[in-house]
Amino acid sequence: MTASHSRSILVLGGARSGKSRFAEGLARDTGLDRFYLATGRAWDDEMRVRIETHKADRANDGWTTHEEPLDLAGALKALDQPGRVILVDCLTLWVTNLMMEEGRAVDADGAALAASLGELQATVIFVSNEVGLGIVPENKMARAFRDHAGRLHQAIAAEAAVVYFVAAGLPLKMKG
Amino acid sequence: MTASHSRSILVLGGARSGKSRFAEGLARDTGLDRFYLATGRAWDDEMRVRIETHKADRANDGWTTHEEPLDLAGALKALDQPGRVILVDCLTLWVTNLMMEEGRAVDADGAALAASLGELQATVIFVSNEVGLGIVPENKMARAFRDHAGRLHQAIAAEAAVVYFVAAGLPLKMKG
Amino acid sequence: MTASHSRSILVLGGARSGKSRFAEGLARDTGLDRFYLATGRAWDDEMRVRIETHKADRANDGWTTHEEPLDLAGALKALDQPGRVILVDCLTLWVTNLMMEEGRAVDADGAALAASLGELQATVIFVSNEVGLGIVPENKMARAFRDHAGRLHQAIAAEAAVVYFVAAGLPLKMKG
Repeated sequence: MTASHSRSILVLGGARSGKSRFAEGLARDTGLDRFYLATGRAWDDEMRVRIETHKADRANDGWTTHEEPLDLAGALKALDQPGRVILVDCLTLWVTNLMMEEGRAVDADGAALAASLGELQATVIFVSNEVGLGIVPENKMARAFRDHAGRLHQAIAAEAAVVYFVAAGLPLKMKG
Repeated sequence: MTASHSRSILVLGGARSGKSRFAEGLARDTGLDRFYLATGRAWDDEMRVRIETHKADRANDGWTTHEEPLDLAGALKALDQPGRVILVDCLTLWVTNLMMEEGRAVDADGAALAASLGELQATVIFVSNEVGLGIVPENKMARAFRDHAGRLHQAIAAEAAVVYFVAAGLPLKMKG
Repeated sequence: MTASHSRSILVLGGARSGKSRFAEGLARDTGLDRFYLATGRAWDDEMRVRIETHKADRANDGWTTHEEPLDLAGALKALDQPGRVILVDCLTLWVTNLMMEEGRAVDADGAALAASLGELQATVIFVSNEVGLGIVPENKMARAFRDHAGRLHQAIAAEAAVVYFVAAGLPLKMKG
């Protein structure tokens, strides 16, 4: 039912579940050249400073950082090369960015991203927040957000070779 | 601790986790005659139209649809026959309906439903939303809802032969 | 990656997931002398009555109950003895209590607790609520709470010998 069509990996987890740290360890363990593709946007100077600090920390740790808030499939294609691992952190921020653009068909963007994974030669590791296991949010935008995020997770998971669910820093393999 | 007393299956998952699609696949794989027991209520004309569209789609796909918002145990008993699989979608809507009825002892209804499963000859597949893994809701009704849902899931899971937790469209077998 | 440095057990789960009942069963199965360490505080007379009722019920069932809202590491050390199992219910209430104290470094308290576990001779079973799998809360305190809880779960899980995730009353072993 869920054959893998790519060498992509999906790491799902809750807030402060240790999912990013786990994904960074997976990337390191591949032994490949490590690229970090950040989807988050700096909304003010304080955040810009924090982002630059993290970028410098990662550079000292062997990562090359790129940023792309919207055209994730394009950024992956531009970075794609055998011998590389690309860590995308994170899909939920990407969904947020897409929702803030007018007239964007978020689910279509997600389907296009998923469809593009099979052609990549790099190993791509996606980090994302599972947000659908609480009470239905009263806020309409929040409901739309978790619907988009849930559909994106299904689309990426269907193409991924391996899927992990992380809680309390511990990975649970759901596929692969 | 958790022996099964029925041939029922519980499929738990978050919003947009792919739990309903997974449950429909399970039903199809049994090869039995498929019945769909919908617990949702149409609150307005738009929803009535959507429900009728889904019902027609399922009919073309080999399902017979019944609707029952309150007396779930009675509806299962009425549909019960060997050679049938009954998909109940979903338990959380049923809890919502019960809570809207005055003076209803929701947990007692859930316990009675669970107790009735062992006598059924059909395979019953329950779909339900896990809603207890977020922050405590500020809204009192929402807190009561997740308490009722959580207790119902425990009661059904204790009687079920198989329990799945679905995330990103992928099933994790928790029992069976 | 996650070697255990103690004989502690962490039982994570959602609201009404059956996590406390599961943890009580684990404690019973050890055959050790059972101590119950409650972190919850009585905020009014009604709650005080409920707490006393539960305490009496547990006493009839073979438990000795202690209460400690803040100094959890100290309380564990005071109760520590070979041949004992100590059930801590629950970590999320402890985080709540710490956050209500002025000037408390919650994460440092959590790290100190985790670091102390390797020296204990009793088996300690921690119960805690996973709260990070819903939508980002709008309330700032709620966001801080789930960050503290998530970091504490990671710290305790790293030291624990066994970690369970409980849903619908069913345990899923994540470590050990």
